[in-house]
Amino acid sequence: LIDLDARLADVGERALIRHLRDRIPTGPNVVVGIGDDAAAVECTGLTLVTTDAMVEGVHFKREWAHPKLIGRKALTVNLSDIAAMAGVARHCVVSLCLPPDMLVAFVDELYDGLLERAAEANVNVIGGNVTSTSGPVVIDIAMLGQGERLLRRAGAAAGDLVVVTGTLGAAAAGLRLLRQGARLGPDGDLAATGIWTDSSKAAVLKCLRAQLDPTPPLALGRALVEEEMAHAAIDVSDGLSIDLRHICEESNVAARIAPDLLPIDPFAAGLARAQGGDGFDLALHGGEDYQLLVAVPRERYADVAGLGQVWNIPIAAIGEFIEGAPEVFIERGGAAEPLPVAAYEHFRTREAQP
Amino acid sequence: LIDLDARLADVGERALIRHLRDRIPTGPNVVVGIGDDAAAVECTGLTLVTTDAMVEGVHFKREWAHPKLIGRKALTVNLSDIAAMAGVARHCVVSLCLPPDMLVAFVDELYDGLLERAAEANVNVIGGNVTSTSGPVVIDIAMLGQGERLLRRAGAAAGDLVVVTGTLGAAAAGLRLLRQGARLGPDGDLAATGIWTDSSKAAVLKCLRAQLDPTPPLALGRALVEEEMAHAAIDVSDGLSIDLRHICEESNVAARIAPDLLPIDPFAAGLARAQGGDGFDLALHGGEDYQLLVAVPRERYADVAGLGQVWNIPIAAIGEFIEGAPEVFIERGGAAEPLPVAAYEHFRTREAQP
Repeated sequence: LIDLDARLADVGERALIRHLRDRIPTGPNVVVGIGDDAAAVECTGLTLVTTDAMVEGVHFKREWAHPKLIGRKALTVNLSDIAAMAGVARHCVVSLCLPPDMLVAFVDELYDGLLERAAEANVNVIGGNVTSTSGPVVIDIAMLGQGERLLRRAGAAAGDLVVVTGTLGAAAAGLRLLRQGARLGPDGDLAATGIWTDSSKAAVLKCLRAQLDPTPPLALGRALVEEEMAHAAIDVSDGLSIDLRHICEESNVAARIAPDLLPIDPFAAGLARAQGGDGFDLALHGGEDYQLLVAVPRERYADVAGLGQVWNIPIAAIGEFIEGAPEVFIERGGAAEPLPVAAYEHFRTREAQP
Repeated sequence: LIDLDARLADVGERALIRHLRDRIPTGPNVVVGIGDDAAAVECTGLTLVTTDAMVEGVHFKREWAHPKLIGRKALTVNLSDIAAMAGVARHCVVSLCLPPDMLVAFVDELYDGLLERAAEANVNVIGGNVTSTSGPVVIDIAMLGQGERLLRRAGAAAGDLVVVTGTLGAAAAGLRLLRQGARLGPDGDLAATGIWTDSSKAAVLKCLRAQLDPTPPLALGRALVEEEMAHAAIDVSDGLSIDLRHICEESNVAARIAPDLLPIDPFAAGLARAQGGDGFDLALHGGEDYQLLVAVPRERYADVAGLGQVWNIPIAAIGEFIEGAPEVFIERGGAAEPLPVAAYEHFRTREAQP
């Protein structure tokens, strides 16, 4: 048995790998699991592949959340990419860069969340890599999924509706709350409200959860494509403004959205108003909502809305795709203005972010 | 066009991704390449999956080699894992963590090597991720391969010969040379001999190349398994002592090797002798040789050796697998002693390495 209170430098790489390997179950369709030079799985149909990393100090801070939640989110952001292609996530490999002075318990708790989320999504952890680093923790996951008919960024046509699931802005509000000292406990309970009073508890909790433990609609994209209810899709990870632009660029159309139709998260809006804002910037540019942004043929919108009701997923038509060079317009006072791209961009300092 | 002399902080994430995307060709069997939420590929047979990362300061230093060679090696270490399973590498995703003050040229040159090696190995780069980091550069690759009959770590039987390809110890000698100031240029030429004189040029060059641009026998494992010439295999990445032990553990056998049969790299041995050593430690524990260590049924050894001659791959039988609890023994003065595991272990300080 490994000593959870020891540091990685004390137990060493091989004991850590043995410990993790013992924790990870072998799932269905896995011919060779962890412990060989490579894993081997049986794939049918198209194989989807994506990779997304979480870097300490950039995507998370250790003091922000229990390691379990970091593990859950590292998996979720990859699940979201597969789901946005209308695929079903199947297998993943987990690559960790860890500093030697880290406690074994941190890695163990990270895996608590990772394996919990994998079980929820019916995904097998089939391999990985562990290396030491002198820098921040990196959790890099590559996810394999299965697809038949895909939902791509290309395919939106002029006349299609711009449809988004869930609400927007809560994750970005959650990020702001974390910077203001609010904290979530390991099981998703509220551990600290930061600068906020108890009367804001429900809103703080909702936004922290949206940031730290996002819940993308993992099955919706597939249902939409099977019933021919969608022409194109993307997950809202960088922010609505840039992600909608990606669909426009790949589909060679423009889009026009109406601000009053935006499903701004009411809790995020409330917190924003309390600090003199209105939640629009959070919803338009905040990112990390991991909701689905879809080009829906106008005549199928009622069916999409109906499916949303059955599955209890909020569905909002926020505008339409139109002929024109790739660009997103927003209606303001009767006219349509180009929406500036103001999403987070890696490598820029926070001050230099647009 | 991107400014190669600019820093990542100046050009930003999206311009970098556009630049890289434009450079990467779309290969065969790729249904969806770079630029969507996930890539989609057609896989047949068993799909092999592996992941291996290179971390600055742990696996490489920027001043040691041209970025092109770092890109080549990041791909090669993953190719080696797929090959050791008797698979054929097909597709990969590349995840980069990069500091904002890095020059665009570094990433571009890294990709020069990565794409060059991918083309040599007929591998498609189908996706990736770029994130900023406050710490060291991380190049994390997940590789997909195709397999039919696999060569696993399990399967070695008592009586099988312990067979290794190529020579051992040159990569570890190369690492020592780098610490002594020797350097390789971008095209594999010798850029500096460090503390060594010109008379050692050939040896320095050979060992630096083995460390910085390894050349695993990528097709051999597959040929061996197809002709039933091998029971088990692993690539020598951590070091012969530990990697042979891995086969023993997975196969539930012991192994006994003879030091005089070890194919110690003659250049590495020469350099070691010049510094008062003998090259044995480098060959036994040095690692990063990326040669194939194979359990060969005794009656097929002549065929394996013959194949090695045809393909110009040195083949050496260095001992045999024997009944017993998983352990590696080395013959010394007529007796067999347990071989201590002395390979590099992540998280330990260099002083605490066994």
